[in-house]
Amino acid sequence: MASDSTTVSPVRPPQRILMAPGPTELPPTVIQALIAPLTGHKDPFFLSVMDDTARLLRQVFQTRNRTCLSLPGTGGAGMEAALTNLIQPGDTAVVCINGLFGERMAEIVRRCGGKAVTVTAPWGEPVDPDDVRRALRAERARVVMATHGETSTGIQQPLDEIGQAAREHDAMLVVDTVATLGGIRVVPDQWNCAICFSASQKCLSAPPGLAPITVSDDAMAYIRGRATPVQNWYFDLDFHDRYWFAEERAYHHTAPVLLTYALREAVRLVVEEGLDDRFARHKLHQKALTAGISALELDLFGNPTFRLPTVVAVRTPDAVDEARVRAELLNEFGVEIAGGLGAQAGKIWRIGVMGYSATQDNILLLLAGIETLLARQGYGNDTGAAVAAASSVYSAARGAAAAVAHTP
Amino acid sequence: MASDSTTVSPVRPPQRILMAPGPTELPPTVIQALIAPLTGHKDPFFLSVMDDTARLLRQVFQTRNRTCLSLPGTGGAGMEAALTNLIQPGDTAVVCINGLFGERMAEIVRRCGGKAVTVTAPWGEPVDPDDVRRALRAERARVVMATHGETSTGIQQPLDEIGQAAREHDAMLVVDTVATLGGIRVVPDQWNCAICFSASQKCLSAPPGLAPITVSDDAMAYIRGRATPVQNWYFDLDFHDRYWFAEERAYHHTAPVLLTYALREAVRLVVEEGLDDRFARHKLHQKALTAGISALELDLFGNPTFRLPTVVAVRTPDAVDEARVRAELLNEFGVEIAGGLGAQAGKIWRIGVMGYSATQDNILLLLAGIETLLARQGYGNDTGAAVAAASSVYSAARGAAAAVAHTP
Repeated sequence: MASDSTTVSPVRPPQRILMAPGPTELPPTVIQALIAPLTGHKDPFFLSVMDDTARLLRQVFQTRNRTCLSLPGTGGAGMEAALTNLIQPGDTAVVCINGLFGERMAEIVRRCGGKAVTVTAPWGEPVDPDDVRRALRAERARVVMATHGETSTGIQQPLDEIGQAAREHDAMLVVDTVATLGGIRVVPDQWNCAICFSASQKCLSAPPGLAPITVSDDAMAYIRGRATPVQNWYFDLDFHDRYWFAEERAYHHTAPVLLTYALREAVRLVVEEGLDDRFARHKLHQKALTAGISALELDLFGNPTFRLPTVVAVRTPDAVDEARVRAELLNEFGVEIAGGLGAQAGKIWRIGVMGYSATQDNILLLLAGIETLLARQGYGNDTGAAVAAASSVYSAARGAAAAVAHTP
Repeated sequence: MASDSTTVSPVRPPQRILMAPGPTELPPTVIQALIAPLTGHKDPFFLSVMDDTARLLRQVFQTRNRTCLSLPGTGGAGMEAALTNLIQPGDTAVVCINGLFGERMAEIVRRCGGKAVTVTAPWGEPVDPDDVRRALRAERARVVMATHGETSTGIQQPLDEIGQAAREHDAMLVVDTVATLGGIRVVPDQWNCAICFSASQKCLSAPPGLAPITVSDDAMAYIRGRATPVQNWYFDLDFHDRYWFAEERAYHHTAPVLLTYALREAVRLVVEEGLDDRFARHKLHQKALTAGISALELDLFGNPTFRLPTVVAVRTPDAVDEARVRAELLNEFGVEIAGGLGAQAGKIWRIGVMGYSATQDNILLLLAGIETLLARQGYGNDTGAAVAAASSVYSAARGAAAAVAHTP
């Protein structure tokens, strides 16, 4: 990289193996879709791409909602859109917080002029539905918010009871499935979701830059009937719905056309693989990864009953410089994993088991690298135990061969 | 396109020649950048790509501002971010309106809890700076907003006097350069801009999905010192500034990594071509296009003194079905142009002379197509007059050969 802008050369990224909790590697046909000929955002062909994408997203979200589309922004855009459309000034929202992304939701509620009633659990634990019920009995809430998979802790939040509590108290449920859609079962209709949003670059394995979102018909009617306008023009879901689904396909923004091609292909691959097979694949690779981690005598973070298949949080040994391990893993093995966020910075690694990155070769390489780099710092002996433990999981699963091969 | 989602096939777009006012066609090296290996959003390599992009954007914006970055959204995201960061509830903003995008700014001001004092001019005319001065004398305004190039009308707004008026009244100037950055001279420092924003897919010829934006140091200080938090978490410019420029590169969102590679390459090409040469190229192709339009005895829309080189608005003949011409142009010639917006729907065509789409071959093909399709509806005789008129402009300019070739 040149320091003088007059001599900046074309971009030449190193080849990375992406094992952080997103972005993931991209399937070859998703890469191909990115460079398919660009059309205009109102071209009849592109409108048909939007139709296809919506139809495929409905299958991936397992929903009957009409409004199922991708917003022109990242997963954070999905969160902002969900909350800014449902919360009016003075509204109360019950926010489940057991990690960084729950905290972010509470902050957005306050910026919307709402009151955030927080229901907390320690990082590494799910939120207790009884605590949500108590909060809903104590205060009239317009909205309840929860994070299905906390990327900051690797914890999965059960949602059936929270959804039922929200329904009983006539509150609208918003669920963040950024770390889970396409990796584990996501069922907004069963949970009674008003809005469920995700991100393109995690278990769906599309490039970063789009936020898939689905909105119930009741929630859309609520948004259209609000007393105050949505304070955010860019994310006003009525405009997006009219561009995606109204007869006139009303212009609102210039869609990120190439990212939409890529997302369409990514969700097409999800549907082609089959949701159940895909979820089983994620579980298998998590099992192999955690077997290897155990062989290294490392502990996993958080409550074992609620650990996500898609984000594996590993406690780093006290005597080890964890940042050095991550840097060497990147520079010597080409493998990216993530460190901890917030209070867990320096204390955990977060490893993504997501989409196209969730493969036998990636898992084995990662474990080999971690074992080598820990031994370099005097932790363990680099005997190959981690790879052997993971390999035995794969061998046992070999009968279900399709789930193990690199190409799903 | 399959109607059954279980049989959706990979995306296979038709090849289009993009002559609407964005998106434009993409230079080959921008397409290559899109499929360069994906890295994580905190990868040291990607952070250096952000650094390069910021440095190149500073040259394109001709600014000394530190804060010069791309937001993860479309041009509308740039507008939303500019206004939501500067306007606090109860603030007054003077909004120059002479087309659709001015109207949108006024709507966003109101959604921010601000009062929009509108200074209007008819569509096709620029706003009179004296009207802005009068509005500023009548009311204490926090912000003044103007659209440098109105994509809806093809009119260029002079900004020196408006910038001076804003400075005299201690108001912050926001300028929309979505239709102009990289196509004509854009000088936010000279105009005294607090914020100047654009879009990736117009004269810069990057794919749609990013909004380049620059913020003056004073405006950043104002944003950081606001009494009320920015009501929009996703577009809070302090977070973006810290991700792009702070020592800790604080995580805020997962950057659209591949779009950022592509934008970096697109602005690299702009700098490589040279701003003055690039502006001259846009003017030459506008001159050729309008010569052809005149040969067809069609009128241009709007005040001749203020017509943009980058968006040419053409009055459609009364006796012609203009939507049919556009549809046939797309289907038989593969060329996309745009229709009118708002009250001009059905009355004008809007033709982009932008970035990599602004070439001799595209202009000649477009004119040939329009002439043929107008004759089909009984308007004119398809004698080749339009192409001949444009060709003579190119012949006269042949001395400056570099400006005419397909590859700039």
